[in-house]
Amino acid sequence: MRALTVRPGTSGSVEVTDVPEPAAADGHLLVDGLAVGVCGTDKEIASGDYGWAPPGEDRLVLGHESLGRVREAPDGSGFSPGDLVVGVVRRPDPVPCGACAHGQFDMCRNGRYTERGIKALDGYASERWTVEPGYAVKLDPRLADVGMLLEPTTVVAKAWDEVEHIGRRSWFEPHRVLVTGAGPIGLLAALLGVQRGLDVHVLDQVGDGPKPELVRDLGATYHSDGLDAALRAAGEPDVVIEATGVAPLVVGAMSATAPYGIVCLTGVSSRGRTVKLDAGGVNRDLVLENDVVFGSVNANLHHYELGAEALAKADVDWLQRLVSRRVPVERFAEAFEAQPEDVKVILTLAQ
Amino acid sequence: MRALTVRPGTSGSVEVTDVPEPAAADGHLLVDGLAVGVCGTDKEIASGDYGWAPPGEDRLVLGHESLGRVREAPDGSGFSPGDLVVGVVRRPDPVPCGACAHGQFDMCRNGRYTERGIKALDGYASERWTVEPGYAVKLDPRLADVGMLLEPTTVVAKAWDEVEHIGRRSWFEPHRVLVTGAGPIGLLAALLGVQRGLDVHVLDQVGDGPKPELVRDLGATYHSDGLDAALRAAGEPDVVIEATGVAPLVVGAMSATAPYGIVCLTGVSSRGRTVKLDAGGVNRDLVLENDVVFGSVNANLHHYELGAEALAKADVDWLQRLVSRRVPVERFAEAFEAQPEDVKVILTLAQ
Repeated sequence: MRALTVRPGTSGSVEVTDVPEPAAADGHLLVDGLAVGVCGTDKEIASGDYGWAPPGEDRLVLGHESLGRVREAPDGSGFSPGDLVVGVVRRPDPVPCGACAHGQFDMCRNGRYTERGIKALDGYASERWTVEPGYAVKLDPRLADVGMLLEPTTVVAKAWDEVEHIGRRSWFEPHRVLVTGAGPIGLLAALLGVQRGLDVHVLDQVGDGPKPELVRDLGATYHSDGLDAALRAAGEPDVVIEATGVAPLVVGAMSATAPYGIVCLTGVSSRGRTVKLDAGGVNRDLVLENDVVFGSVNANLHHYELGAEALAKADVDWLQRLVSRRVPVERFAEAFEAQPEDVKVILTLAQ
Repeated sequence: MRALTVRPGTSGSVEVTDVPEPAAADGHLLVDGLAVGVCGTDKEIASGDYGWAPPGEDRLVLGHESLGRVREAPDGSGFSPGDLVVGVVRRPDPVPCGACAHGQFDMCRNGRYTERGIKALDGYASERWTVEPGYAVKLDPRLADVGMLLEPTTVVAKAWDEVEHIGRRSWFEPHRVLVTGAGPIGLLAALLGVQRGLDVHVLDQVGDGPKPELVRDLGATYHSDGLDAALRAAGEPDVVIEATGVAPLVVGAMSATAPYGIVCLTGVSSRGRTVKLDAGGVNRDLVLENDVVFGSVNANLHHYELGAEALAKADVDWLQRLVSRRVPVERFAEAFEAQPEDVKVILTLAQ
């Protein structure tokens, strides 16, 4: 069968190759692959900068933002043929750390986790794949065209879950949220903010195209004239979800919140983006306002469940509009090349 | 009776003045003042930079790090004459915000709280004072000479409480703690870390004097050769309690932790201490390591209770050694002038 594979560490080695048909053994589900989303990590792997093939293999099957339909399910698995399903990315090491032993493999302490499509486990960009039922998440049947958005949704589901946990250190009734960046993570963070009944503001650079409309159609407010102007127009936010990784925005976000504010950083930035910072002032604000800044990455099964609930509640037409392009896997190169109005690009796997 | 008072906003206006004897009315306790601690806030008020007199008054009685002995206690107050007692600093507004209504006046949202010895309420630096039993904390009788350390202990009790709440977002078994600064806050933070069974490291600048010995006698490790050297010697900490407010240390602390690390900032710094920061690198570490940085200031009644428990468990001789100088209130000027080996200076109130 066909799969999108890469020779990790080798730039330009992505190809659609023929790989052995998977067999549903050991209680696994056998799944027909429908689509995979393409994200920055896939591009890093394609550039040879990241990624590990399974032990003893040269090539890694790509794809971690998965969507498929169950073909065969063992009795008692909780799944039936025809179910829409997403496979979880990360697996704990067989000798788990304390966090992994508690199911919190997103917080793995020993670094010996594996990740489908990224680290030592084949991904989901193949015509058929198998997955352990315990690492599979059933989706609402209405999500057949957009379910590959679950994996990025888990990132923001975790971010919101952490914001709320940290908020509960004391009385916490946030009203206003600022999301910086209107890519898939920012837009999904805004969706989950709106679902919480919050006054959501999204800041990005572009003044037109699909992003402003997507934000407005959520019932949120779009800003494209910089952080200071957004803060002047919207007021100080109680929560900031930073989804750009752009150094001045990260630093700005840390100073932007209302007292008792919580900033969640989700954007992975490059080192060496140096800024001049009034560290005394930033520290003073953090201390005197009891502010919190935290980073969040990855997700565990609980966040997949929260993400699946959030998508099931969302407007499917709005989710459809996050998918800018649907590219057949044979034309993967098109998907890996960004176009100006892209939000999320997916590869379709079915013939 | 004598009290240490100040005309807020007027530098050099601190004096021992004669003030009316308080009457224990409305169910209040009447307390003989024993001592007050002197801290940076008192010095700011003395400089005319901070502080508000009670409405309609010119002068404010100073003193918020209190210690007294109950002289008269109403029936059913839970207190008896002779009890060692500390008065809480902050009071919520009669029309409380959501946080104050939940007893979390340390997280007051509307800013309309008052504070004894600081903001619109007379403090505890008088021969006798009254306090509502609900804002009074009974201390272990062994703490008669050191109980004025409770208020600074509440600051670190809150810091640790928040560290632990945030830590419980996932599996959390910290081992190593770095405390930056060996002033009263740093040393008390170290005490509470040792009480938790953690491997505590304290970084300060001075190589000799009482601080290194105080740290070693806790069973902690003292470092005086800079942050990088301390990290090389001790390894990456799981928790950092920053108690200097010194800009490079604050920034260093944010990058110093082990993955999933938690940094608590408690030092109030001045604005305008600009540093060159690799904001991209700091953000990257925070995100990819799921790190947390938060500020903490003030305390509510729960933190007073936690602080009183911590002091009751501590070695009283060690606590005694935190009190560098005991100055009779008439000679207050000596107490307001720092000496090189000072940790905590107190004013004694009894004749």
